[in-house]
Amino acid sequence: MIILKLGGSILTEKDSLKPKVNLENLNRIAIEIKDFLKDHDLKNNGLLIIHGAGSFGHPYAKEYEIGEPFSNEVYPSKRIGFSLTHNSVNELNNIISEIFIENKLPVISIPPSSSIKSFNKRISYFNLDLIKDYISQGFLPILYGDVVLDDKLKMAVISGDQILSYLAKNLKFKKVILGTDVDGVFDKNPNLYDGAKLITSLNSIKDLSQEHSTTNVDVTGAMFGKIQELVELADSGIESKIINAQIPDLIKNALKGKDVKGTVIKAKIIK
Amino acid sequence: MIILKLGGSILTEKDSLKPKVNLENLNRIAIEIKDFLKDHDLKNNGLLIIHGAGSFGHPYAKEYEIGEPFSNEVYPSKRIGFSLTHNSVNELNNIISEIFIENKLPVISIPPSSSIKSFNKRISYFNLDLIKDYISQGFLPILYGDVVLDDKLKMAVISGDQILSYLAKNLKFKKVILGTDVDGVFDKNPNLYDGAKLITSLNSIKDLSQEHSTTNVDVTGAMFGKIQELVELADSGIESKIINAQIPDLIKNALKGKDVKGTVIKAKIIK
Repeated sequence: MIILKLGGSILTEKDSLKPKVNLENLNRIAIEIKDFLKDHDLKNNGLLIIHGAGSFGHPYAKEYEIGEPFSNEVYPSKRIGFSLTHNSVNELNNIISEIFIENKLPVISIPPSSSIKSFNKRISYFNLDLIKDYISQGFLPILYGDVVLDDKLKMAVISGDQILSYLAKNLKFKKVILGTDVDGVFDKNPNLYDGAKLITSLNSIKDLSQEHSTTNVDVTGAMFGKIQELVELADSGIESKIINAQIPDLIKNALKGKDVKGTVIKAKIIK
Repeated sequence: MIILKLGGSILTEKDSLKPKVNLENLNRIAIEIKDFLKDHDLKNNGLLIIHGAGSFGHPYAKEYEIGEPFSNEVYPSKRIGFSLTHNSVNELNNIISEIFIENKLPVISIPPSSSIKSFNKRISYFNLDLIKDYISQGFLPILYGDVVLDDKLKMAVISGDQILSYLAKNLKFKKVILGTDVDGVFDKNPNLYDGAKLITSLNSIKDLSQEHSTTNVDVTGAMFGKIQELVELADSGIESKIINAQIPDLIKNALKGKDVKGTVIKAKIIK
C-alpha cells in the first residue's frame, strides 16, 4: 500500500491573489498516476492520495487565525472562518477529483473535517472505517489539509503531512512518497547557495542541525514541519521519500519503485 | 433541534442539460435561514440541513445505474460512475455552502459517502460522532443525497430523505421541515385536476390509497419515497411537514414555528 502526498505548492498557483489551480501540473500528475495504475491492482495494493491546501487554504486559515487561542466574543467570526477555509479546500479537492476522474482514476474524497478531531493541533480521533472499505474496493481515497474541531483550542488546522504520518502508521502503508516543488532536503538553501547539496538520506532533525549549519539549511516553515512528521514516521519503521513533483515522470517512477532523485527519510540505526 | 430538507428540484435547474444551480432560490433561502437565526441559539437548539442532489446527482446515478446489480467485468466502469456522481453532488454542496457562508451561516459539509454505509440501499452504518460535535459547537451541518458503499450491492444511492429519517430518529430532532417545489401532498394531481385539494394531515400511505384514488393521487416517484420515509418517522413519534420552498418566507416562517401551508405527516392515533 502506497501513500502519495501532493504538495499544495505544486497543485495551486502560489502567487495568485485568488485561489487558483495549477492545471498543467495537475493534468500531468493525473496521467502519471493513470500510467502507474495500468500495471497495478488497487484492490490488492491500495493507493491513497493526500494533497495540501495551497492557496485555497492558507490565506483563509491565516486571516481567521485558525488554531490560535481566542476569546469567546470572536467565536462567531472564527466559526465563519472555519466554514470558509473548509469550503475553499473542498473546492480545491473537487477540482482535483474532477481532473482525476476525467483520467479514469476512481477517487473518493474523505474530508478530514468530517473524520478527524484533534487535541492541541494533534489528531486525537480519526474514523478509518470507510477509508479501509474504499481501499478494499479498489477506490483511491483522497484526503487533504483541512480544518478540524479541536478539544483544546476549539478548532485547528491539520496539515496533509500530519494526516500522512497518522495514516501510514495506522493503516500499515509500506511506501510513502511526497511530491513537492523542490528536489528534496538540501544542506544549504539552493536558491541562495550555488554549492548546495541534496541530502539523499536523513535520519533526524537533530542530525541535520548538527552536521550542517541550521541557519543555512532549507528546513524552515513547511519543510521543517514535514521532516518532523517524517522522522517520527521513520522511527516507527516507515521510510518516506521527498521528490520533486514538478519534474515529469518522477511521481510515476517513484510509484513504480524506481530509484529517483530525492531525499529518503529512514530510521536511525541504533548501534 | 430542527432538520431542514431542501429538495434538489428547488436548488437546481431541473431542465438544464448540464448540472446548474438555481441561484435565485438559493440566495433567497440563505437569507431566510439567516433571518431565522437572528433569534435562534444554534448551540442550544441545533439546525441541520440536508439537500437533494437534483440535476447534479440523478443523471450520473441513472447513467451508471448505481444501486442496480451488475457483473464483475463492469465494476471498473461502475466505480468511475460512483466517483463521478459523488464529485458532482459535492460540487453542488460546495456552491450551496459558499452562498450560505456569504450569508454568514456557519455551515460544515458532512459527505454521506464518507460517513454512511448501506445494506441493500438502507443505511446500516452512520458515523454520527462529528455531526453531534459540530451541532454542539453551533455549526450548521449540511448533508445531502449521495452514493455510498453497500454491503450487498457494492454501491447504492442514499436519498436525502432516508438520511433525514435516520438522523431525526437517532439524534432526537424535534422538528422536521421539507422544502419542496409543491405545496404538499394533494388528493389528485394538481397539475391535471382543477379541484385537487391539499391534504393538510397524513398518517400513512395506506390511508391515502384507501381514501382517495391511488391513480390520481400525486404520490409517485420522489414524493412516494419521501412519504414512506416520513410515515415511518411519524410512527416513531417525529412529525414532519412538507412545504413549498418556492414561496418566499415559507421556510423562514416554518423554522420560526408559525403555521404555514403544507402537509403534516403525523403518527396514527391507535384507537
